[in-house]
Amino acid sequence: MYIQIELQTRSKVDLLDITEKIQEAISKEAAKDGVCFLFCPHTTAGIVLNENWDPSVEKDIAMALEHMAPDGLNYRHSEGNSPAHVKSVLLGSDHFIMVQEGTLQLGQWQGVFFAEFDGPRRRKVWVRVLSMVDSE
Amino acid sequence: MYIQIELQTRSKVDLLDITEKIQEAISKEAAKDGVCFLFCPHTTAGIVLNENWDPSVEKDIAMALEHMAPDGLNYRHSEGNSPAHVKSVLLGSDHFIMVQEGTLQLGQWQGVFFAEFDGPRRRKVWVRVLSMVDSE
Amino acid sequence: MYIQIELQTRSKVDLLDITEKIQEAISKEAAKDGVCFLFCPHTTAGIVLNENWDPSVEKDIAMALEHMAPDGLNYRHSEGNSPAHVKSVLLGSDHFIMVQEGTLQLGQWQGVFFAEFDGPRRRKVWVRVLSMVDSE
Repeated sequence: MYIQIELQTRSKVDLLDITEKIQEAISKEAAKDGVCFLFCPHTTAGIVLNENWDPSVEKDIAMALEHMAPDGLNYRHSEGNSPAHVKSVLLGSDHFIMVQEGTLQLGQWQGVFFAEFDGPRRRKVWVRVLSMVDSE
Repeated sequence: MYIQIELQTRSKVDLLDITEKIQEAISKEAAKDGVCFLFCPHTTAGIVLNENWDPSVEKDIAMALEHMAPDGLNYRHSEGNSPAHVKSVLLGSDHFIMVQEGTLQLGQWQGVFFAEFDGPRRRKVWVRVLSMVDSE
Repeated sequence: MYIQIELQTRSKVDLLDITEKIQEAISKEAAKDGVCFLFCPHTTAGIVLNENWDPSVEKDIAMALEHMAPDGLNYRHSEGNSPAHVKSVLLGSDHFIMVQEGTLQLGQWQGVFFAEFDGPRRRKVWVRVLSMVDSE
């Protein structure tokens, strides 16, 4: 069974650092060595792994995505949030991180963000840590 | 061993909803609780998770990808399908979905699409559902 | 425990074919049937699955990413490598490939690249092959 993390995003576009929330969630798990799977069950948001040290980086990522999928394209979807769907697709809804001794294995500058593109809203992330039968 | 799903795409660019085909495939598996891994063994197509309710969304995604990787860039690859390779890379070839009680765990509006960018063609998707030794 | 592969990228932007290095790494593993997880612990590089037959394809991918996230956008991050962060995000840091009888299961034209966007540098890729309790 997966763990559900609940989030409140703060603005229309919002990269929310969820690294600690995920670490907390997996700390309660018996499984200490394996892979942590993260899933975003929304279609106008996504999950992204990148630098969480300088907040300028997350702003630059959001700005560049806006450049790639601008509001002014000739979209058909009547709800007006097509750019949010496109950005969700570019980042992806499913990501994994390795786990050793109960700790997320990330690079020195790496964190996990929930990427909101149609907020502010209540959102969820599903987390599952799996211990597996591997080569040891 | 993975299950191979065979598909026929219908046009050069085609987002084909394969949610039910994947659900059918995993229903035959003994494994009922774990993670379903999906893999596209092609380099001019990909897999994408997003809204499968309003067909305008998939058209807007295809249109925005066309905006990002237009045919008119100065490509070197002589086959003329470089934009299809680029779009494949942007969506990704490998995605996973959690499974509970034999059922794909998707958000309310979420479906799985096979994204064709160099069709129409016969295509394949590889599916594997894994039950794992987890914390229970 | 994951295996760490060490790489030396050759230029600022560099798509390095690491298919054989990964195959070598997993050949030493006892696990012969499952899923191979690949993780890039860097925030200005990524991993990409695509054609490794015609080298023009990797050059076209790099060129199209440059078109999408050009150097000239109004970035805030003071290190000047924001386009590299954006490209890392577009490709993703985490990818998986299925494994059968100790062999990576790739499509006919598919290979795995380490994608450098802020090199040349020493880089790492983490690899873990997992055998799992599945339906057999």
